[in-house]
Amino acid sequence: MMKAAIFGASGYTGQELIRILLGHPGVDLVAVTSRRFESKPVAEIFPSLYGLTSLKYINAAPADIAKICDIVFLALPHGISMEIAPVFIQAGKKVIDLSADYRLRDVSTYEEWYAKHTSAGILKDAVYGIPELYRQKIKDATLVANPGCYPTSIILGLAPALKNRLLDVNTIIADSASGVSGAGREPQTSSLFCEVDGGFKAYKVGKHRHTPEIEQELNILAGEKFAISFTPHLLPVKRGILSTIYANLKTDIALPELYALYSSFYKQEKFVRICPPGSFPNISAVCGSNFCDIGLTIDLRTKRVIIVSAIDNLVKGAAGQAVQNMNVLCNWEEDTGLQMAPIYP
Amino acid sequence: MMKAAIFGASGYTGQELIRILLGHPGVDLVAVTSRRFESKPVAEIFPSLYGLTSLKYINAAPADIAKICDIVFLALPHGISMEIAPVFIQAGKKVIDLSADYRLRDVSTYEEWYAKHTSAGILKDAVYGIPELYRQKIKDATLVANPGCYPTSIILGLAPALKNRLLDVNTIIADSASGVSGAGREPQTSSLFCEVDGGFKAYKVGKHRHTPEIEQELNILAGEKFAISFTPHLLPVKRGILSTIYANLKTDIALPELYALYSSFYKQEKFVRICPPGSFPNISAVCGSNFCDIGLTIDLRTKRVIIVSAIDNLVKGAAGQAVQNMNVLCNWEEDTGLQMAPIYP
Amino acid sequence: MMKAAIFGASGYTGQELIRILLGHPGVDLVAVTSRRFESKPVAEIFPSLYGLTSLKYINAAPADIAKICDIVFLALPHGISMEIAPVFIQAGKKVIDLSADYRLRDVSTYEEWYAKHTSAGILKDAVYGIPELYRQKIKDATLVANPGCYPTSIILGLAPALKNRLLDVNTIIADSASGVSGAGREPQTSSLFCEVDGGFKAYKVGKHRHTPEIEQELNILAGEKFAISFTPHLLPVKRGILSTIYANLKTDIALPELYALYSSFYKQEKFVRICPPGSFPNISAVCGSNFCDIGLTIDLRTKRVIIVSAIDNLVKGAAGQAVQNMNVLCNWEEDTGLQMAPIYP
Amino acid sequence: MMKAAIFGASGYTGQELIRILLGHPGVDLVAVTSRRFESKPVAEIFPSLYGLTSLKYINAAPADIAKICDIVFLALPHGISMEIAPVFIQAGKKVIDLSADYRLRDVSTYEEWYAKHTSAGILKDAVYGIPELYRQKIKDATLVANPGCYPTSIILGLAPALKNRLLDVNTIIADSASGVSGAGREPQTSSLFCEVDGGFKAYKVGKHRHTPEIEQELNILAGEKFAISFTPHLLPVKRGILSTIYANLKTDIALPELYALYSSFYKQEKFVRICPPGSFPNISAVCGSNFCDIGLTIDLRTKRVIIVSAIDNLVKGAAGQAVQNMNVLCNWEEDTGLQMAPIYP
Repeated sequence: MMKAAIFGASGYTGQELIRILLGHPGVDLVAVTSRRFESKPVAEIFPSLYGLTSLKYINAAPADIAKICDIVFLALPHGISMEIAPVFIQAGKKVIDLSADYRLRDVSTYEEWYAKHTSAGILKDAVYGIPELYRQKIKDATLVANPGCYPTSIILGLAPALKNRLLDVNTIIADSASGVSGAGREPQTSSLFCEVDGGFKAYKVGKHRHTPEIEQELNILAGEKFAISFTPHLLPVKRGILSTIYANLKTDIALPELYALYSSFYKQEKFVRICPPGSFPNISAVCGSNFCDIGLTIDLRTKRVIIVSAIDNLVKGAAGQAVQNMNVLCNWEEDTGLQMAPIYP
Repeated sequence: MMKAAIFGASGYTGQELIRILLGHPGVDLVAVTSRRFESKPVAEIFPSLYGLTSLKYINAAPADIAKICDIVFLALPHGISMEIAPVFIQAGKKVIDLSADYRLRDVSTYEEWYAKHTSAGILKDAVYGIPELYRQKIKDATLVANPGCYPTSIILGLAPALKNRLLDVNTIIADSASGVSGAGREPQTSSLFCEVDGGFKAYKVGKHRHTPEIEQELNILAGEKFAISFTPHLLPVKRGILSTIYANLKTDIALPELYALYSSFYKQEKFVRICPPGSFPNISAVCGSNFCDIGLTIDLRTKRVIIVSAIDNLVKGAAGQAVQNMNVLCNWEEDTGLQMAPIYP
Repeated sequence: MMKAAIFGASGYTGQELIRILLGHPGVDLVAVTSRRFESKPVAEIFPSLYGLTSLKYINAAPADIAKICDIVFLALPHGISMEIAPVFIQAGKKVIDLSADYRLRDVSTYEEWYAKHTSAGILKDAVYGIPELYRQKIKDATLVANPGCYPTSIILGLAPALKNRLLDVNTIIADSASGVSGAGREPQTSSLFCEVDGGFKAYKVGKHRHTPEIEQELNILAGEKFAISFTPHLLPVKRGILSTIYANLKTDIALPELYALYSSFYKQEKFVRICPPGSFPNISAVCGSNFCDIGLTIDLRTKRVIIVSAIDNLVKGAAGQAVQNMNVLCNWEEDTGLQMAPIYP
Repeated sequence: MMKAAIFGASGYTGQELIRILLGHPGVDLVAVTSRRFESKPVAEIFPSLYGLTSLKYINAAPADIAKICDIVFLALPHGISMEIAPVFIQAGKKVIDLSADYRLRDVSTYEEWYAKHTSAGILKDAVYGIPELYRQKIKDATLVANPGCYPTSIILGLAPALKNRLLDVNTIIADSASGVSGAGREPQTSSLFCEVDGGFKAYKVGKHRHTPEIEQELNILAGEKFAISFTPHLLPVKRGILSTIYANLKTDIALPELYALYSSFYKQEKFVRICPPGSFPNISAVCGSNFCDIGLTIDLRTKRVIIVSAIDNLVKGAAGQAVQNMNVLCNWEEDTGLQMAPIYP
């Protein structure tokens, strides 16, 4: 049994990690931390877990947690993670960081979009945690930078097309929409039910911090440097991200070929489902699961490919992918503890 | 491996049965029927199941299904179930019927609230399928009448109080609210998103067909005959039933005693959770799980007990309880295939 | 033109008052106050009002506001209103207070359920502002205590039955459910979209502060003293309150008589609609309007009357009723500025 | 008083027309038709209107309706409108058609995307009913082709930029999302609450019938021929359309200039609101109103302009714009009967 801890386990991502890890046969969840809820039972904060765990939140120093666990999940805001990850790394523990702190390979890009980076030293050891793209590297990593939710949906949606050099990369536009859980559990006016229900809006238009992360990975996939447009929207749902991605085709590929290429690219993958031709994903069909569903079409009138991808932002976009990364790290079957079917309706 | 079939598997309850049975280690799901979707893949109708099953809907006669399965779930409208159940019974198969056809022990009550009963002969063999109350009988049953969703929430909420003769039974009022999935997947105006979202209403006030079923079981528990008031409401949510139940106390019981009595009554039960004193259930804390959460208080000003119970109508209120009954029938651990934690948020 | 001000106009009720008063032909809205949003345009905080008003929030002393207005609406938390109302009263202005501070005629009851009352001196001048019941008194009032949202729905639902002595008053149970806007616009975890959507729960069971207010008015209507059970629930909708009210009948009244009695009681009322026999209200059918819809039935099996009433908590339950009270005070047509049809769907 | 009739008034658009026209001071609503609800009171089908109208649905021939009205609104499916409009035209009545039948000026385009056109003779007389663009022509029209909901949001969003030749027209992408009321009130599985709530999906990707309508008007505005990409999505809300529109800039315009240009273009317009710099529209801020809100930014990294526009699909996207067109036709103030503020929250 692997001894796991979650640092910062009081938000929605933390809760989802607890939920998944409690059902994971290879893991013993030994500690969950929270400053705000110190010494309160997890099940008091999240009554859905009542009867399923007797864990209480603790407020311990990273060094003390490092002594009792083999692997730690950091479900912390950016800026905080980089203060804490080095402690675990130094203690020889595996770290899966769900913040943005180790996702950007270029320190100056991080500092341009986020803030001063105080842990650049271990940045080079971090592996970007999309197993479908970096499985081999993750196996040997000590520090996995678990991807952002929007980036996961967009990168998986574009990877086969970019790898195969199908696209005019300067025409890529990703129009995404996320459920509210992506904004966390901190009370704020903009996340109130009355502000969100019945509404739909774009936000941080042209300046969302996931932009450089998406570009970093798309550039690597395409083997060239380019910028994209990325517009996030807020959906009146709890979970789910849908990305509708546009790009001009550089080549004369027909739709069946495109499907063949995507199916082949993801053939071995347990968590990527290519929708049958003519059908497109719905976030409600992946809810609660680690799936990424992808639909495709070519608009012959404009010679654009349109790719639609859907994930559950808390699972494949956060906690699920983190566990998937742990499974890779531990050489377990990649879907261990992640076999839950989507909940529908 | 038990060979199971689902007769009438194209609705929300049918889908939920499929979802649960696909993850059940003791069951091989061999057939699912649907007239409307004959020969279509289940995953085409329910894309959430894409990649998880290659089953196709078939449109076969009961006798033919009986030949290939050990146990059958009937997820059919009342009136249809009683035409089909006898075929399986006669073939020596176990039947778990999710309709109302075998729930009422008194044929004339059935005929007063529903329609002519054409299968009264096997009615006496049917066991009412709340394992928490009828576990021993279910073990030996061939025909389990799986309870209605509202009745499950109300009966479990009242059982300890009635068994202990605490209540003035003529003052019982059950005020319940259900998610829309309870109305099924047939297209009808009243279930449209625009009719339901932002709304809340009472319906079938004083005449819902679950009333006699609730009264039958409450009368048995109390050992006397009485009528109750039951008012269902329609909630703008997909899943969940909350019942707020009122009754005058006959005795001078204090709240801590009441909690002790409930906790003791359900001590061995895996699926009933008594909320800690001062807290009350929320349907979102049982969503996707087989739990029934129960909260209690005594209103000293009026000497009334107020009991609030919550279930997921598709799980503990239908498919989950059906699988729980199967587990009892098969002498398996009662939570086999039912260990999923509620999905939250 | 009447010069009106709103003290505490930054919440949902304040916004609704602004929205209604901007369309009121007899009113000039001269000032809206907010400490938090001082000097910000109203339309910046509520973009729905963009282009409709150039008002900015001010943070002025009550005495200064009193100099520039004829009437003031206090949309403040209880405890604050009673510090501010006296200033306006002394300045000879009309006050419509939307807090609980002047609703309870008995100071000790107020202090038992709320807090120390510091303005008991003017309490006796306050008129409880349900125009359907206190129209004559409101005409001459200087201080109107605008009712709570739950009380409005329950009192209007029971008034005809109680006035006509039909009920065994000790059996009255009011089971209510409210939209989230009733909890205000202050950021708090329990009002977050992810906490509310897909959920339904009872809260403050047996101890909600509206209980004594409801009892005060029901006791007056019935001419005797009694307690009721009142259970509020939280609905995943923005607006609306539905109350399902139960009581045993004391007399042998038939349903058509009951309808006749209710229709006659509310015959002259513009804002109370008795649903046609067999139909019951839905909060979505009153959304955005000042209507209170009432449905009725008698459960012959239990000899209970069941009354269902629906209002929009922000309109008839708060801002709309406040404007209705102003209209009465000013001797205007009672529906001036309140003729908006419900918005549907 | 203008005598108005609504042909096909049983859907959501029909209901919205009734709601608006009942509050319109210049209109006497003399007839509403419905085959399905013949002889039923409107308020029975739409209880929100109870007490506000005693109109009953009739099932009369167009010629008979033409005898009693001055103007008719056709809220019918495409294909049916063109059978009925000519009757009213011939009788010398004004027609505002809310279907697609007279929107496309080119018959062959209509027949490619819809079906055989049987009323091409009067097509040339039809005026496309966006008053902001065609006000003068509408004044003298007998037949107004009321625009589609998606086209309204996209055309208004792009008009100033195209008129001023700012865009590389071959790069235009419109990514839109609509509330469910756009799908009408006919019962269908895909509009059920359980199918929509918690979901988000793209549909008719690359082939929605509004595409040629959008292109027709954008081409006219730009003075050249081009195709666009348009992707509609289904939102779990009742009302509202948000369009996020992308295009490469052809010129080096700065953001303040762009705002100035948009503000100037719509300076005289009562129903178009340009959001303050840095803020973007939300469908909840236009709900129930005839406003179109527009937000703007320039993504300097990609040299793309991003325009976000929001309308209520049932108001500015259908019934409200129809009434606005009637006001223009009748030489009334353009906002007569349309002054309702958005309802929020």
